[in-house]
Amino acid sequence: MIVTFDRHLRTRGQGDTHDITETVAAAVTESKLAAGVAVVFVTGSTAAVTTIEFEPGAVADFAALLERLVPRHAPYKHHERWGDDNGSSHVRAALLGPSLSVPFRAGKLTLGTWQQIVLVELDVEPRERAFVIQVMGE
Amino acid sequence: MIVTFDRHLRTRGQGDTHDITETVAAAVTESKLAAGVAVVFVTGSTAAVTTIEFEPGAVADFAALLERLVPRHAPYKHHERWGDDNGSSHVRAALLGPSLSVPFRAGKLTLGTWQQIVLVELDVEPRERAFVIQVMGE
Amino acid sequence: MIVTFDRHLRTRGQGDTHDITETVAAAVTESKLAAGVAVVFVTGSTAAVTTIEFEPGAVADFAALLERLVPRHAPYKHHERWGDDNGSSHVRAALLGPSLSVPFRAGKLTLGTWQQIVLVELDVEPRERAFVIQVMGE
Repeated sequence: MIVTFDRHLRTRGQGDTHDITETVAAAVTESKLAAGVAVVFVTGSTAAVTTIEFEPGAVADFAALLERLVPRHAPYKHHERWGDDNGSSHVRAALLGPSLSVPFRAGKLTLGTWQQIVLVELDVEPRERAFVIQVMGE
Repeated sequence: MIVTFDRHLRTRGQGDTHDITETVAAAVTESKLAAGVAVVFVTGSTAAVTTIEFEPGAVADFAALLERLVPRHAPYKHHERWGDDNGSSHVRAALLGPSLSVPFRAGKLTLGTWQQIVLVELDVEPRERAFVIQVMGE
Repeated sequence: MIVTFDRHLRTRGQGDTHDITETVAAAVTESKLAAGVAVVFVTGSTAAVTTIEFEPGAVADFAALLERLVPRHAPYKHHERWGDDNGSSHVRAALLGPSLSVPFRAGKLTLGTWQQIVLVELDVEPRERAFVIQVMGE
């Protein structure tokens, strides 16, 4: 059994990190499936999905790491191509990946108490983000 | 068909890397499923799951990379929040991700000979780690 | 329902990046499944699968990032072990991961227009690469 959920949210630009745990948990509940996997996938090449303890300190630390590893203001060949300036966004997204698979059982995600599912905006402008939650199970 | 396995192991602190390939392969065998996907998911926000050639050199190289990219002893805002000192753990975990999906067929994981599934402890203290193996297939 | 596809391609060495989106989309079509998840998994410990906007600029930027974070020519303990020189390949592969899960519905992957699935060669020599596309759904 598979139930697909389309979800959207509005972001404020690079580093903006959204806790989507409740959205994913609600999709699992709505699917009425007991056990399986929720695959969270963000559409687009300048955002990512991962888990983190969603408190402002850790979230800021993660954004700071990305800025240190892949600086926003640096020469990117992608800029030459399109005249835009989100080369850092594309590279960060390829590094982190667009997808996360989270098991559930008894209708509940197997997350830790301090482990939240986040959608990380990596693009340099605010965006309307679409993501898919594919709930597969029985 | 879905079969859920809970597994545990004890780690020795940051960088301690455990080969869990046999544990995952045994879960697939025990599920009696022929083809599908094993989703390995570590519960908690300071550990990760990935694959590596599990020999001491490559494992040490990977730990050294993480220390270079995300130093253990550096200022983290997460420390101000909780008074703890595992900011590096949280950021490393968000970078690597908690989840891995491995296909199997004829009851066998599609891993390479030198490709092992590992649970990487990123926290600064020894931990009792719980992870889930969700075997889905037919 | 599960349908397994074995696919191969020949790479030209470290940094060589292949757009496999059409291959994955064709597997979904051939499976005749309407909704589900395609799990793409590269066999071997020196390659990775992720998504990126597949244009030469962004692809070169990503390769440059990997070279900056994990230099090809640097001391690796893996080299002492085997006398080979692909320590950077193993570490990059563990960082990026071998696997990607992409939902599909109505027989179509939920990718963005500028979001391609790529197999990234991380080994230092040309390789014959095998990857598996596990299509699960209904």
